[in-house]
Amino acid sequence: MLFSKKRKKIQGDEHIRKLAEIVGDDEILYKKEDLISYDSDGFTVHTHMPKAVVFPTDTKEVSEIVKYCSTHKLPFLARGAGTGLSGGATPVNEEVIISLVKMKSLLSVDYENRQAVVQPGFVNLKLTHSISDKGYYYAPDPSSQYVCTIGGNVAENAGGAHCLKYGVTTNHILALEVVMPDGEIVNIGGEGIPDMPGYDLLGLLTGSEGTLGVVTEITVKILKNPERKQTVLAYFDKVENGSKAVSDIISAGIVPAALEMMDQIAIEGVEAGAFPVGHPKDIAALLLIEVDGIAAGLDEQIDDILDVCQNNHVTDVKVAEDDEERGRWWANRKTGFGAMGAISADYLVQDGVIPRSRLPEVLDQIASISREYELRIANIFHAGDGNLHPLILFDSSVPGETDKAVKAGSACLKACADVGGSITGEHGVGIEKREEMKFIFSEEEIEAQTRVREVFNPHNLLNKGKLFPSPGKCVEIKKEEKKAVQI
Amino acid sequence: MLFSKKRKKIQGDEHIRKLAEIVGDDEILYKKEDLISYDSDGFTVHTHMPKAVVFPTDTKEVSEIVKYCSTHKLPFLARGAGTGLSGGATPVNEEVIISLVKMKSLLSVDYENRQAVVQPGFVNLKLTHSISDKGYYYAPDPSSQYVCTIGGNVAENAGGAHCLKYGVTTNHILALEVVMPDGEIVNIGGEGIPDMPGYDLLGLLTGSEGTLGVVTEITVKILKNPERKQTVLAYFDKVENGSKAVSDIISAGIVPAALEMMDQIAIEGVEAGAFPVGHPKDIAALLLIEVDGIAAGLDEQIDDILDVCQNNHVTDVKVAEDDEERGRWWANRKTGFGAMGAISADYLVQDGVIPRSRLPEVLDQIASISREYELRIANIFHAGDGNLHPLILFDSSVPGETDKAVKAGSACLKACADVGGSITGEHGVGIEKREEMKFIFSEEEIEAQTRVREVFNPHNLLNKGKLFPSPGKCVEIKKEEKKAVQI
Repeated sequence: MLFSKKRKKIQGDEHIRKLAEIVGDDEILYKKEDLISYDSDGFTVHTHMPKAVVFPTDTKEVSEIVKYCSTHKLPFLARGAGTGLSGGATPVNEEVIISLVKMKSLLSVDYENRQAVVQPGFVNLKLTHSISDKGYYYAPDPSSQYVCTIGGNVAENAGGAHCLKYGVTTNHILALEVVMPDGEIVNIGGEGIPDMPGYDLLGLLTGSEGTLGVVTEITVKILKNPERKQTVLAYFDKVENGSKAVSDIISAGIVPAALEMMDQIAIEGVEAGAFPVGHPKDIAALLLIEVDGIAAGLDEQIDDILDVCQNNHVTDVKVAEDDEERGRWWANRKTGFGAMGAISADYLVQDGVIPRSRLPEVLDQIASISREYELRIANIFHAGDGNLHPLILFDSSVPGETDKAVKAGSACLKACADVGGSITGEHGVGIEKREEMKFIFSEEEIEAQTRVREVFNPHNLLNKGKLFPSPGKCVEIKKEEKKAVQI
Repeated sequence: MLFSKKRKKIQGDEHIRKLAEIVGDDEILYKKEDLISYDSDGFTVHTHMPKAVVFPTDTKEVSEIVKYCSTHKLPFLARGAGTGLSGGATPVNEEVIISLVKMKSLLSVDYENRQAVVQPGFVNLKLTHSISDKGYYYAPDPSSQYVCTIGGNVAENAGGAHCLKYGVTTNHILALEVVMPDGEIVNIGGEGIPDMPGYDLLGLLTGSEGTLGVVTEITVKILKNPERKQTVLAYFDKVENGSKAVSDIISAGIVPAALEMMDQIAIEGVEAGAFPVGHPKDIAALLLIEVDGIAAGLDEQIDDILDVCQNNHVTDVKVAEDDEERGRWWANRKTGFGAMGAISADYLVQDGVIPRSRLPEVLDQIASISREYELRIANIFHAGDGNLHPLILFDSSVPGETDKAVKAGSACLKACADVGGSITGEHGVGIEKREEMKFIFSEEEIEAQTRVREVFNPHNLLNKGKLFPSPGKCVEIKKEEKKAVQI
């Protein structure tokens, strides 16, 4: 490594050299060939090249990078594992990307007060792995949890299959250390203090999609493992029967830890993927239902769930025999998006939310959209909290089909918004759904939000052009820059 | 009533007459003798007279009042039942008080999607009463729930005994209709949508202590009644044993619905109050522990709780025999603050939060503060979430004693802040704890918050002088008014 350090010589412009002075010559990428894998996150419809990627190793370096960018009016953004699905970490203004993957330590665990402190680049699932021997876990479980980072989870307010019972990321964040867009380091929230006085800045920062600050340290709640888990797999020959079962389970007063649904095309995909479990191909829908808690109460809940399934004409239903079977069912579900690659050249994941009671009607509309755009749409989703994930299957090598897929996705979101729902449950707005924000917010409401952004991010250098329909200050800054040059 | 309407004639200044035109002559108070009961809320240390009190009956009237006040630079604030404990509804700038007690309807209940829509003046406990026949309830339960309003709960982000398991008000709010400080009516959040895109304005508004807008309609989550509840009462001859039992219950993986503690002076108070239950006078502390959920699992949890109590040298412990006994224990606890009137001329309730593990040490410090200020301090509190309520007993007829009580209260909050805690768990900052905000926030952090206020409340006419240490814009506006008069 010492040798390679000697060999390397920074050849970029002055900004590159100055940034290299902050992080070290080995911790910056600036050559085109090195930058190419940073041209988008998991939302690959639009790609743009960044100016550079820097890899700070502590908060002080992040602060110095941000101060440098702020002083020199260089657009910048933070990036975790790059698994985001709405383009939140895609550089659209030749940003300096601050990659936080080298700030990946578990800093402390306090079992007595049930909290842990992590750096932003710490991988979600590693937290549970690090504390499971003491009987604890971290609840938010996006399907990408084996690779996504907790910093990215905070930015996107990530959800997951078990968020029906346990809530999304924001419900598990106790405190944040944040580098503000001017480089100042601030601490927000209190460790072990669920409700700080003053405005809820912790809630405001969480889910702000990297537009208000760069999170450099995160204090999260950890939970005691439930005594026992039980998982039910149920097949239905009509989607409506599955939907009705979802409503009936909730109405019965059961709060499942997870309540997932897949339709026929989705089942075809997961069975063609890396973790097939032998689902029948001819069924219309399946439900994966998990309950957890004190062992004594679970059998009764399972009985109630089986009753609900029977009352809704289930064609087959079984309870996982052991952890191994349960694990296989979950691997099949959690790799579901990727598995679509086995049945389609390309796919676009959408992420809408609806009131649970409108499920059958919205699924019908998605089927109509599929017919209208002549594209197959699979549905794998968190049925319990009405968070739909239509997967639009397309082939980008067919001229015009990418555009058609994007339009079909937008039409799915419109269908959700029209029943009083929302355009994103857990993937964020990013660059993907900026225009769709208008489906649910008035101009005034969007304006109020951009004014909040201005308080924290007055020059809009941090992740500009994201989250809101109008580029806003983006343009103004360019003008200012020109002026500065002219003078 | 028709007769009285005829008799009444508005005699106030032009502002009073114009406001009366909006709400009707019967829906405004402006004479000194009528205004006197609005000179403070439940925090009675400071009292100030309002300019007038208006009683709108719908959102449109609220909007017109706000527009009038905004146009004429009249300070104004909203008020619910006036049970707040930090002066949030106390007029400190001769405000026009917008009382929301006549907007007290339950507008709709949607059992399928588990939500209800209420007006802000709807009393907290009435919601549970209105839906209990269908087996549902509303979880946040401040001790004043039989009289406090849900609008006030939203403003203060109210907590309660059962918030350990179920979370505070903000965890139960799905959507708000808000009249902004310029009179505009906006809708925030989505019914049935837990996580809207964009910034979390719903979270920002909730707990903003009436400084960002006037809430006129609230969509809340409703929960299915737990199948069964069981309640344990445990006595300890040392406070440390009780504290240790609290930690051990949580460490055992039990999440009680409530975990309350009272110390010896508090027990003396509640036994002298309206709902004595025969607690022994010679014990140092009692715990009231409730579990709820699926019936099958509860006995095991109760056994575990009894074991923990035994291991911590409990002197006596019992499980409530029936709902009647359980109800008596809760009445005794929930009227605890008021009961202090039976053993002291006056009392001041404080509201600090600490990490649960620091309980014994902070209780020791509160005992020291009691000795230093020569005032008895009772403790009745939500031990499970570390939310302390020191009750400082004093006699306002003794010269200097009110001041001493206020200082002792502030010292208790300092002790909480010093162990990484907070200065309020559920009562808010209001006018009471403005200076104590400095215990936990830097100047920059407070400045950032006031800038957020400016986005929504640019002229700071709405509930000005609350929540933050510096009066800020308060002074500026007075200057402007003077100027206007001079011109």
